Amino acid sequence: MATFAVPQQIPPVAEDCERLRKAMQGWGTDENAIISILTHRNARQRCLIRQTYAEKYGEDFFKPLQDELSGDFLRAVLLWTPHPAERDALLANEVTKKKHSAAHNHLVIMEIACTRTSRELFQVREDYHARYKRSLEEDIAYHTTGDFRKLLVPLVSTYRYEGGEVDMTVANSEANILQEKISEKAYNHDELIRILTTRSKAQLNATFKVYNDQFGHPLNKDLKKKPKDEYLGLVRATVQCLTCPEKYYEKALRLSMKGLGTTEETLTRVVVTRAEVDMKSIMEQYQLKNSVPLVQDIKSDTSGDYLATLLALVGQSSS
Amino acid sequence: MATFAVPQQIPPVAEDCERLRKAMQGWGTDENAIISILTHRNARQRCLIRQTYAEKYGEDFFKPLQDELSGDFLRAVLLWTPHPAERDALLANEVTKKKHSAAHNHLVIMEIACTRTSRELFQVREDYHARYKRSLEEDIAYHTTGDFRKLLVPLVSTYRYEGGEVDMTVANSEANILQEKISEKAYNHDELIRILTTRSKAQLNATFKVYNDQFGHPLNKDLKKKPKDEYLGLVRATVQCLTCPEKYYEKALRLSMKGLGTTEETLTRVVVTRAEVDMKSIMEQYQLKNSVPLVQDIKSDTSGDYLATLLALVGQSSS
Repeated sequence: MATFAVPQQIPPVAEDCERLRKAMQGWGTDENAIISILTHRNARQRCLIRQTYAEKYGEDFFKPLQDELSGDFLRAVLLWTPHPAERDALLANEVTKKKHSAAHNHLVIMEIACTRTSRELFQVREDYHARYKRSLEEDIAYHTTGDFRKLLVPLVSTYRYEGGEVDMTVANSEANILQEKISEKAYNHDELIRILTTRSKAQLNATFKVYNDQFGHPLNKDLKKKPKDEYLGLVRATVQCLTCPEKYYEKALRLSMKGLGTTEETLTRVVVTRAEVDMKSIMEQYQLKNSVPLVQDIKSDTSGDYLATLLALVGQSSS
Repeated sequence: MATFAVPQQIPPVAEDCERLRKAMQGWGTDENAIISILTHRNARQRCLIRQTYAEKYGEDFFKPLQDELSGDFLRAVLLWTPHPAERDALLANEVTKKKHSAAHNHLVIMEIACTRTSRELFQVREDYHARYKRSLEEDIAYHTTGDFRKLLVPLVSTYRYEGGEVDMTVANSEANILQEKISEKAYNHDELIRILTTRSKAQLNATFKVYNDQFGHPLNKDLKKKPKDEYLGLVRATVQCLTCPEKYYEKALRLSMKGLGTTEETLTRVVVTRAEVDMKSIMEQYQLKNSVPLVQDIKSDTSGDYLATLLALVGQSSS
């Protein structure tokens, strides 16, 4: 469930554009106006604002944003505003530029591959073509190697079946295959990767349940034997995103704000990509796991317009 | 270019349905009527016939066809009539049933993956979901193993960029990678597979041209070192389908009719899948390579209603 609020009566798009234009003209910038408009419009409405703005003022709406805003606030607004497929194409393309750590890059690709619907993932691939004149899997295959490539390329290329049908014979046989490969520490085995990258989420849930029932503990526990192994961490995260994304995202948020300093990169990405999807469940999971509301941690770790933007997206006023 | 003729004035679809109904009712079957209607309607018109027939007579048009026709003629009509995406989904699903040889099955999958447009291949995957409640890549991954799986799964999962842009730096570097892997006989190397399964056709053409210019002979010649190796044969066929499908299809047709006996399976598949696409180039290539028109060989090797159907699809009357 989405967390940010869209007013029942939204103003005409031309009026939004005029207010945004005014907020970015002349001396200073009216950040509050920008936040209050953009964080209360859904994806379709934001796309319409961007389109109308370009028609009305002859420039991409992102240009004055980039001139007037900066830092984490700018990044949050630039990632929030586009259509989710465009945003994912931007995020996926960024990771090929290797600005961040390999672990971060792999997680971003995996999130896009595993937590979007099959149709949404395909739309990202279409958008990627139009924007970068290459394919998503082409760039990911080119910029990754070894086991990471072996897992990530089929993950982003798959078009998973989304019906609820489950084949219990398959679930039984594949739970055994998974157990066998994991017990042999063959975490990069073709069969393990085939199962994770091609089976439907419903089928995987059934297979993992058989695994749990038969071997007495969840599959992901068996994948924790080398806690610091980066590839194994990615496999665990994949399993979690395919079956209970709210738990994965809760942990991502927790780690982004843990201890001293904040990984704004992750905090922004999780909030903007999930606000319109399942942020409510993620917040419930956060409260459950940390005995503290997410909002409280966001308030402790961030400030200013960036804080105000995040709070509006998780459905809280900044007051 | 398509080969079969669609009349400038086609009768109303209800009239086509009535003629088809009549052709299949009572004593005997009017095969000529069935052939003359179906082989002169394009994909959209045939879909409309099937839909209208079902609405009008309360049964799938394929049911009376299956009751009244038989053998290669029936198979040709059943494969010709559906929308190309549905036909490809049917063909791809058949190969998972292992009725034919593994070599045949691998070629069918490769053809669908490499000679359709990216959008068409995606439509096959959508149709596969709807029809079989699983994904195309899921079934192919499950029913193949080893190197064949390693090549075929990314081939059917890819959504290749289709623009004409070419990066000559990439072409140079990847021509060298290919040469290196081929000279090491590492035909199943990750890099070779990455290049073949993710790069656009325009980029691959440029890379193969660099290969030819730099090493003095075409890449496919270097892939012929073990002519009977089935996997290597599949790699060669993949390269050919990605760059000059008419040569691949010419050879498939030639082999299907060579010597005693005919592989109707292949003959039918090539004619029905290409008649609406590039059959004209394939026929020109056939004449060039065999100094005999394709039509003449089809007439020598087949007969009756099956012959009449094939001839109509390649644009020749059976008289």
